Amino acid sequence: MKVTHNGKSKHYRTVWFDKANNQVRLIEQRLLPHQFKIVSTKNYLETSQAIKDMVVRGAGAIGATAAYGLAQGAQIFQGNEIKTFEKHIAKVYRTLASARPTAIDPINAMRSMLTKMDGQTVATRKSQALDLAEQFADDDVAYCQEIGYIGESLIQNGTRVLTHCNAGWLAFVDYGSATAPMYYAKARNKKFHVFCDETRPRSQGAALTAWELAQEGISHDIIVDNASGHLMQRGEIDLVIVGSDRTLGRTGEVTNKIGTYTKAVLAKRHNIPFYVTIPLSTIDWKLKSGLEIPIEERSSEEVLRAWGTTDRGQRQSVSVANPSSTARNPSFDVTPPELITGIITPVGIFNPNQLWENRTKLGYNNKK
Amino acid sequence: MKVTHNGKSKHYRTVWFDKANNQVRLIEQRLLPHQFKIVSTKNYLETSQAIKDMVVRGAGAIGATAAYGLAQGAQIFQGNEIKTFEKHIAKVYRTLASARPTAIDPINAMRSMLTKMDGQTVATRKSQALDLAEQFADDDVAYCQEIGYIGESLIQNGTRVLTHCNAGWLAFVDYGSATAPMYYAKARNKKFHVFCDETRPRSQGAALTAWELAQEGISHDIIVDNASGHLMQRGEIDLVIVGSDRTLGRTGEVTNKIGTYTKAVLAKRHNIPFYVTIPLSTIDWKLKSGLEIPIEERSSEEVLRAWGTTDRGQRQSVSVANPSSTARNPSFDVTPPELITGIITPVGIFNPNQLWENRTKLGYNNKK
Repeated sequence: MKVTHNGKSKHYRTVWFDKANNQVRLIEQRLLPHQFKIVSTKNYLETSQAIKDMVVRGAGAIGATAAYGLAQGAQIFQGNEIKTFEKHIAKVYRTLASARPTAIDPINAMRSMLTKMDGQTVATRKSQALDLAEQFADDDVAYCQEIGYIGESLIQNGTRVLTHCNAGWLAFVDYGSATAPMYYAKARNKKFHVFCDETRPRSQGAALTAWELAQEGISHDIIVDNASGHLMQRGEIDLVIVGSDRTLGRTGEVTNKIGTYTKAVLAKRHNIPFYVTIPLSTIDWKLKSGLEIPIEERSSEEVLRAWGTTDRGQRQSVSVANPSSTARNPSFDVTPPELITGIITPVGIFNPNQLWENRTKLGYNNKK
Repeated sequence: MKVTHNGKSKHYRTVWFDKANNQVRLIEQRLLPHQFKIVSTKNYLETSQAIKDMVVRGAGAIGATAAYGLAQGAQIFQGNEIKTFEKHIAKVYRTLASARPTAIDPINAMRSMLTKMDGQTVATRKSQALDLAEQFADDDVAYCQEIGYIGESLIQNGTRVLTHCNAGWLAFVDYGSATAPMYYAKARNKKFHVFCDETRPRSQGAALTAWELAQEGISHDIIVDNASGHLMQRGEIDLVIVGSDRTLGRTGEVTNKIGTYTKAVLAKRHNIPFYVTIPLSTIDWKLKSGLEIPIEERSSEEVLRAWGTTDRGQRQSVSVANPSSTARNPSFDVTPPELITGIITPVGIFNPNQLWENRTKLGYNNKK
């Protein structure tokens, strides 16, 4: 999307590839919203480290970064032996796959590339790697554009939208999932307002989603996670749009950032439409119940502290809690289908209870 | 309650009076949970300033502080003329009443004293002021003790309680409202666990309630405000107890810290008992609808920043949000009676829909 930096506006993706220098370029997301900076990784080891250190985060964005990393690693191979090349590529794959062990997107992206890198010579395969990585990134953008195109109709002049966490373009290659309908509505000059949940403990809503919306000139307010119930009660929210980390194709249950379930319960009570936006890669066709989804408990430090920037512009964390207390920190929750109005995908909007019967349309693959 | 400080355990109230030196003593609440310190105010102007600067906060606590401030102001009067004394007391009253203009407790506490300061001489009135202030503080303690005694039966061995914000002893003179049942259950050696909602934006749950529970050795965890829905869904919460800033005697609607309504909606969905604890002074017998309750919108800075302590022990605030974004900050919300299991008062537990028919028992006064 467009970023205004040093007084100039320019279109950026979160990640892209510099063929001439065999470098991956990334927006340094850890500095946002306070500083906008592009970093380059000079080899696949640095690219892997950037994923690990969360220079880049978000399912689609790290998938594309790993894809570029694989292509980048392929280029440095010297020689013509296919067998040796395959061994080299296997090493590159393992390095990139281990950067975020629980993330599925880098693995899916790279596996898909490997099955298609079938050229007869090393040179062909190197070239295929580059094309396939570029294709992966372009597809990610296209899927988000479809979500935007389809979801845009939900936003009218005057609509007040609530979103949670960051399912924005920073989490993908461009456009984002939950934000894509907003960007499309803005492009059609609709006047609407967005409430961004702060999304403790990591504050991605206050930091990243708000930054994205500000860059696009979309009217918005940040609210604490406690405030949405009150705003719904007073009739100040018309629509909820969120993303998802994993959606169960068999049950329609949606895993997303902690707090999403609460928003869905509140929306149901107030008869406010609650939509989930997902690329097809987010659908899990295997699991048969939301209770099977492992809920990651992250470090209690995230709860006991808050991270931000001092008035002098320095990154600083402060203790916000009683020092002798402990914390629980479940990071995701599961929203059942009866609370979800619709699931917006690149191939249409679906009732969460009808994902399985539409599985062919939704890219279900028996082998998965 | 008991505070362990420099290795010694001692019982403290939030506020008390030193007759010999005509000084009010207060726990400096702005330094908690990181530092425990007692401050003394040397005259009623300093006492008023301490209320204004939030050295002391919480309905009962500032009510008692104002009562002591009025008695303190009375003592410095020189002379025997009742008329001049009354003029002097009126000035003291105005000063203390204006410290927190929207708070009702200081005004109620002082008005009640003034109607009873009916002695024939200045000396008698001075002495009455001291006794009445002491009585006010003792009554506040007794009311909270009754809430504790009555509410304790809700907590069993193994009960997992959720509470929101700080309705603890720091907000009263002692025991607190929502915490009193916990302190009574602990005194009876019951083993239970408390989840403290962080309560953004001011984090009173993470800072104050967690500190209180730690001082009493009560098992607890801090959670972000987003997490309680997930914990309820997984069966990890058995009971919710919160306080209230204003409860409507005619409708049973409960005003409390922002986020309380959300907890009540979630508790209802999961059939978890939701109790509100209140001293009788919190009941508003006038208003006929929750929509009439003015909802204070506080500074957006509270949302855009987080306050805490650095590793070097310095108080510091950090910006946690996109700097060019704005915020909305409604500070309270209204929970309707159908979401409330019971209202625990010093005179018993009431169905929120039956406050009006029990108004005589609940201290309703026609003249109010």
